[in-house]
Amino acid sequence: MSDHIVKAYDEDLANLKTMLAQMGGLAEDHLAKAIEALARRDTKLADYVIAQDEKIDALELQLEERAILTIAKRQPMARDLREIMVAIRIASDLERIGDLAKNIAKRSHAISEALPRKLATGLTRMGRLSLEQLKDVLDAYTTTDDAKALEVWRNDGELDALYNSIFRELLTYMMEDPRMIGPCTHLLFGAKNFERIGDHATNIAENIHYLVSGQTMREERPKKDTTSTTTFDSLNER
Amino acid sequence: MSDHIVKAYDEDLANLKTMLAQMGGLAEDHLAKAIEALARRDTKLADYVIAQDEKIDALELQLEERAILTIAKRQPMARDLREIMVAIRIASDLERIGDLAKNIAKRSHAISEALPRKLATGLTRMGRLSLEQLKDVLDAYTTTDDAKALEVWRNDGELDALYNSIFRELLTYMMEDPRMIGPCTHLLFGAKNFERIGDHATNIAENIHYLVSGQTMREERPKKDTTSTTTFDSLNER
Repeated sequence: MSDHIVKAYDEDLANLKTMLAQMGGLAEDHLAKAIEALARRDTKLADYVIAQDEKIDALELQLEERAILTIAKRQPMARDLREIMVAIRIASDLERIGDLAKNIAKRSHAISEALPRKLATGLTRMGRLSLEQLKDVLDAYTTTDDAKALEVWRNDGELDALYNSIFRELLTYMMEDPRMIGPCTHLLFGAKNFERIGDHATNIAENIHYLVSGQTMREERPKKDTTSTTTFDSLNER
Repeated sequence: MSDHIVKAYDEDLANLKTMLAQMGGLAEDHLAKAIEALARRDTKLADYVIAQDEKIDALELQLEERAILTIAKRQPMARDLREIMVAIRIASDLERIGDLAKNIAKRSHAISEALPRKLATGLTRMGRLSLEQLKDVLDAYTTTDDAKALEVWRNDGELDALYNSIFRELLTYMMEDPRMIGPCTHLLFGAKNFERIGDHATNIAENIHYLVSGQTMREERPKKDTTSTTTFDSLNER
């Protein structure tokens, strides 16, 4: 590329990165607020998260369009092209994280009932772990830190393990007190949402690795959510 | 563009469309098989769906890479560029639909227990409706039929309504017979998966509309899944 085009391309890329940083900041903020809304049973805060989600959606569309235009205009190759592809993919994961935070905020309305604090505490712990994963992976992207991305990728197993234990705990609780089935179901879906947020952070980590190395992750993903095949015989025998 | 470039571009585009048709065919096939596995409690069929999902994942990555390379090489504008952007987005929705079908297949293992047939029937009805939506929207894409896409978009409300009623039915059932909480939870998540598949079909419909008109859908999406804010007071009072 000529000097002029290189400069224009660098500007375009810096622009994309700024938009992605904005999206990341919003996703982090909404997730933190959704967790707080859940923990403090704060429906106003939940409503704020629900109302703000469309900002992230709009940013994703904008970023995607600009990214595609940049590719069409500048015809970047190799690492430059990878940089833009990765930005598009990360934007899509952040948009989904925003959706999931919105969903958690919605559920916090229904959860603010007569529910034992202990159960909600497990869920907020899961929420905080997912938030940490998101923060760490955004840091890893900003500093292009492959080792840190790999750490996030490995830590996802912890979130899955926590999900499994909360899942079992909630089912046991529902069996003991069927009046709690309604609110507990919301907690179950909420827990699943946090688990999915962890998956998206893992996706982002994989994309950072791809960006840095040009290679996809070769190890098996540390998938430890086994709840979809649990038959609960042991629980039913109680 | 020169004639030579136009021809090369047309070939690239035809290539992308073939890959997308392949992905659509696989997603449809996996979803149909996951529903069948659920209805007939056929664990072998479920295992097939689980094992085949990586094919869709691989196709999505391939399609995305080729699409981006096409943009870089051919620098298409306006409608041509839109065509490629839409292909990338639809591929991403199809990949998610494949994931959800895999998830349903996984759950069918746990559901094949002593569960009243009536409950599973409601779920397979939901599954068939989601499959119809997927088929219709893929047809709409192949024939670039905006009116048909709009129809799919409008019909999503039906799937949401069915989800709401199954959700309530399952909770009621769990309250009446707490031993069924485990298997019913899987049905709940399964129902949620079908509802999400409907959302992805709706996304695809929106992208077809954007492709044809250059405009985003202006109407509000017919979102009728209200379960995340249901507090179940009426159910608990039973």
